[in-house]
Amino acid sequence: MKIYGDHRSGNCYKLELLCALLDLDYEWQTVDIMRGDTRTPDFLARNPNAKVPLLELDDGRCLAESNAILLFLAEGSRLVPTEPFSRARMLQWLFFEQYSHEPYIAVARFIALYLGLPEERRADYLSKQAGGYNALDVMETQLQSSPYLVADEPSLADIALYAYTHVAADGGFELTGYPAITAWLRRIESLPGYQPMKA
Amino acid sequence: MKIYGDHRSGNCYKLELLCALLDLDYEWQTVDIMRGDTRTPDFLARNPNAKVPLLELDDGRCLAESNAILLFLAEGSRLVPTEPFSRARMLQWLFFEQYSHEPYIAVARFIALYLGLPEERRADYLSKQAGGYNALDVMETQLQSSPYLVADEPSLADIALYAYTHVAADGGFELTGYPAITAWLRRIESLPGYQPMKA
Ligand SMILES: N[C@@H](CCC(=O)N[C@@H](CS)C(=O)NCC(=O)O)C(=O)O
Ligand SMILES: N[C@@H](CCC(=O)N[C@@H](CS)C(=O)NCC(=O)O)C(=O)O
Repeated sequence: MKIYGDHRSGNCYKLELLCALLDLDYEWQTVDIMRGDTRTPDFLARNPNAKVPLLELDDGRCLAESNAILLFLAEGSRLVPTEPFSRARMLQWLFFEQYSHEPYIAVARFIALYLGLPEERRADYLSKQAGGYNALDVMETQLQSSPYLVADEPSLADIALYAYTHVAADGGFELTGYPAITAWLRRIESLPGYQPMKA
Repeated sequence: MKIYGDHRSGNCYKLELLCALLDLDYEWQTVDIMRGDTRTPDFLARNPNAKVPLLELDDGRCLAESNAILLFLAEGSRLVPTEPFSRARMLQWLFFEQYSHEPYIAVARFIALYLGLPEERRADYLSKQAGGYNALDVMETQLQSSPYLVADEPSLADIALYAYTHVAADGGFELTGYPAITAWLRRIESLPGYQPMKA
């Protein structure tokens, strides 16, 4: 299988981290989103939504959406709970990540890190702060009562939320007021097979 | 089980439609988001992220995120494909809905319908148009080649995306240029058990 991605993107890093933890082999193809690589006819034929990461199977079938790819690759592994309610909770966190976390924390980071925080995006950047801190508050509440987002064992929820939380500072988010999140980041970083973000 | 929701919300309607199609019984509790019902200590204890819909099981456990609730309730039904790649495709659409569709189409609708399109939100409203049409383009591309989003049979992907697509006009989106989407809306509306949005 082949992963089309950008090493600086947290959404892509989710897959790199998963494959490291589960020891899965893949070919990597760098796609530079700043150079318009997701807008070529070739890429659009693979993903009409023009985004990375993208998974391509050996038979050519393609799958988009980082969290859907996590679920596809990890099904049956220790990172996916089998008990129905724990599984549902994991899914809850995956959707939370895409709706209430990434659009604030990853987008603020994008504006600061990729675009260099240009004056005309400053208002946009600042408008992401409240939502980002709200997402961190929700995570902190959970992590005060359990070591991982879904109870006692790491799951895909932790991988998905680790990706942008551990680089939240790039988007201007201070984690000093979040001791449970900070301890959880260290817990993930000591999982066997853990691999840091490459960029 | 009990569903906390608002009949005007597409995210809540997803669950009402699913339960109608699968003939599932539930108790409904109206939560008025405009009155601050999601911000009471009582509600926040159930969902620290302060959003509806929320599912409460008979034993008191709660689950948030509309698409996670769909998956929890429909697992094992005809609306969830068992073949792994079809399942992954369904998940891809569910994440697409939350990331690339709802934040544009549902938010534009919220500004117009709930808030009455006040002057100070007009720029925000207009900024949602391009993203919303992009999401419709991606759906149209798929629906030109299959009757439902995941091939030949309706799945949760169709329920989740039907919710705000069928009321996209409320957010200023014209569906006249989207014949495949329009035919798909009618196809869903003729499924046995189909129930229209109540509000
Ligand atoms: N919901 C998608 C989001 C992916 C996404 O936003 N990818 C960005 C890079 S982090 C991208 O490809 N942007 C290029 C573009 O939008 O043109 C996922 O989780 O995979
Ligand atoms: N990602 C969530 C979104 C839910 C959502 O945005 N709900 C809105 C109503 S449609 C809400 O409860 N808003 C109240 C608030 O944010 O205070 C889901 O799919 O359930």
